[in-house]
Amino acid sequence: MQHTTDTLVSPLDLRLAAQARRDHLLDGRRYPEGTAGALMTSEYSSLDSGLSASQAIDMLRREAADAETIYQSYVLDAQRNLLGTVSLRELILAAPDQPIDRIMVRKVICVCTATCQEDVARLMREHDLLAVPVLDEQGRLVGIVTYDDALDVVVDEATEDFHKGASITNHVGNLKDATIGLLYRKRVLWLVLLVFGNLFSGAGIAAFEETIAAHIALVFFLPLLVDSGGNAGAQSATLMVRGLATGEVVMRDWLRMLTRECGVALALGGTMAVAVASLGVLRGGPEIAVIVASSMLVIVLVGSLIGMSLPFLLSRFRLDPATASGPLVTSIADAAGVLVYFGIASQVLDI
Amino acid sequence: MQHTTDTLVSPLDLRLAAQARRDHLLDGRRYPEGTAGALMTSEYSSLDSGLSASQAIDMLRREAADAETIYQSYVLDAQRNLLGTVSLRELILAAPDQPIDRIMVRKVICVCTATCQEDVARLMREHDLLAVPVLDEQGRLVGIVTYDDALDVVVDEATEDFHKGASITNHVGNLKDATIGLLYRKRVLWLVLLVFGNLFSGAGIAAFEETIAAHIALVFFLPLLVDSGGNAGAQSATLMVRGLATGEVVMRDWLRMLTRECGVALALGGTMAVAVASLGVLRGGPEIAVIVASSMLVIVLVGSLIGMSLPFLLSRFRLDPATASGPLVTSIADAAGVLVYFGIASQVLDI
Repeated sequence: MQHTTDTLVSPLDLRLAAQARRDHLLDGRRYPEGTAGALMTSEYSSLDSGLSASQAIDMLRREAADAETIYQSYVLDAQRNLLGTVSLRELILAAPDQPIDRIMVRKVICVCTATCQEDVARLMREHDLLAVPVLDEQGRLVGIVTYDDALDVVVDEATEDFHKGASITNHVGNLKDATIGLLYRKRVLWLVLLVFGNLFSGAGIAAFEETIAAHIALVFFLPLLVDSGGNAGAQSATLMVRGLATGEVVMRDWLRMLTRECGVALALGGTMAVAVASLGVLRGGPEIAVIVASSMLVIVLVGSLIGMSLPFLLSRFRLDPATASGPLVTSIADAAGVLVYFGIASQVLDI
Repeated sequence: MQHTTDTLVSPLDLRLAAQARRDHLLDGRRYPEGTAGALMTSEYSSLDSGLSASQAIDMLRREAADAETIYQSYVLDAQRNLLGTVSLRELILAAPDQPIDRIMVRKVICVCTATCQEDVARLMREHDLLAVPVLDEQGRLVGIVTYDDALDVVVDEATEDFHKGASITNHVGNLKDATIGLLYRKRVLWLVLLVFGNLFSGAGIAAFEETIAAHIALVFFLPLLVDSGGNAGAQSATLMVRGLATGEVVMRDWLRMLTRECGVALALGGTMAVAVASLGVLRGGPEIAVIVASSMLVIVLVGSLIGMSLPFLLSRFRLDPATASGPLVTSIADAAGVLVYFGIASQVLDI
């Protein structure tokens, strides 16, 4: 429910409102997509600090038709600087003659026009806000973002991250109405890139062709070992991507996370090594069992550490960490897995 | 911000409120996690239909301290049946002596205690609701779900789907504080299951060991072809999972989606077939090029159709479709890929 109208509803200072609108048009300024400026509505309720509670309610009654919400109002000075905020609930509860500058909250949580929309949504969620005021570079109020727009941001963002996790580029829009051409374009780039990414796995296999030809039983365990590294890596990457997206994890946690991940990966790899060792004995004898079990341990460890580090790396280079979950990390972990597996195999089998 | 108190705030009929509270305690009824009943707060504002607008505002003023929100009030009869809803905005705008049963909206969007919380959040998002009333089996109002709780549901749900997409079971909680033991438990089950899932790929390879031994160049293309099917399948599954989660797609769309998916997959597979055909010529000559190109086309088609159908299947059997995105669909598509690739290879190479 994003409003693109630039009507400023406060009847308090029409001259300033007109001025602001002119500034806006003169600048020809459009706020970039994905910022608070692009998401906000200028249909907020503003109040003059000199009013009493009952005068403020009367004022809101007149504004109600035009304002997006009258439940949260902003108290402004003549320069449209934000002095405080007052909720309709507080106005209703106050004595009718109480001045609003005695009721209003002066420490207002606010964002600026350039704040990215995910941060706005996160802030509103953390503080259970109905609306958050948006200020320009001069600290003047230019709009508000309301809870319903924040909810849409959260859903769209989750969808986009989800899609990126499966290497689908950008926004598909409503899936039901998407055309074959659109879906093709959103999916083909990554699929073709991943084909070339998998060349590294192929090259790794080619490098060990003699080992493979001599011990064809090794091929039986190839998908199983290689996929395990990719799967463990995808898990780690997904946990990190979502942790970074919800703000639970930040860049400086990287080292602590990496240490813990080593512990988790060794435990996981150990369990899976036991699981494949028995298969190794059955299919190729004790020598093969040692190879597949030790490969599994190393592959899961390497895969997990790649999966955990990649989102941090992308984040550091200002790329979307969500790209890391899924096929990208899987392809990298796969190539690493091939090298580990055949590397260990050729050592053990003494070729 | 879920409230577990069972205080009923309406001062209108304290006898009934006490009765309801007693019922609640006698039943020992706890609403199952994930339902509107578990999410709701009983701190709503209720009004008597006989009031005027100004009387209603006075009433809300007295209730404001106890109610979660006074911006949306519910008009009840003596049996606590919901007659209508009125917003504080409407009360403020109305003439002071206007009876609220003339102002209130009679067609109220409401849910029952058993409604799953994702449906509640979806409903609130679609209609931009501040709060939604929750009714019991007898149609009596028992609570409301507010926008801030709905926002938390959306974030938690997206996180959970995201995790399931990488085969992480259930809820990890705050990632930063998760212990090694917890992360191990959440991740190990699927990883081990997928190891056994990959046995099908291994078995597929074992069945064609002779072909592979005779044409070792085929192994070079194995990860590339097999992963492409998995990647295409993961894309399709992810699109469907998220489409089902946001409500864009429903069960009856299956056939239409399947038809469209065939078109998309053929276009994708065709593009990728061209990409690998050149590699095939370089590494193994025209015969290998034909094998890998035709395998790619079939593998991408099969992978996409599996990826698209699996979320629908899981959904039909009342399992969470989010399980389908990622490793599960990848493993299934991988096994199919092995069979397709070596099946085509052994046909073409006449072994």
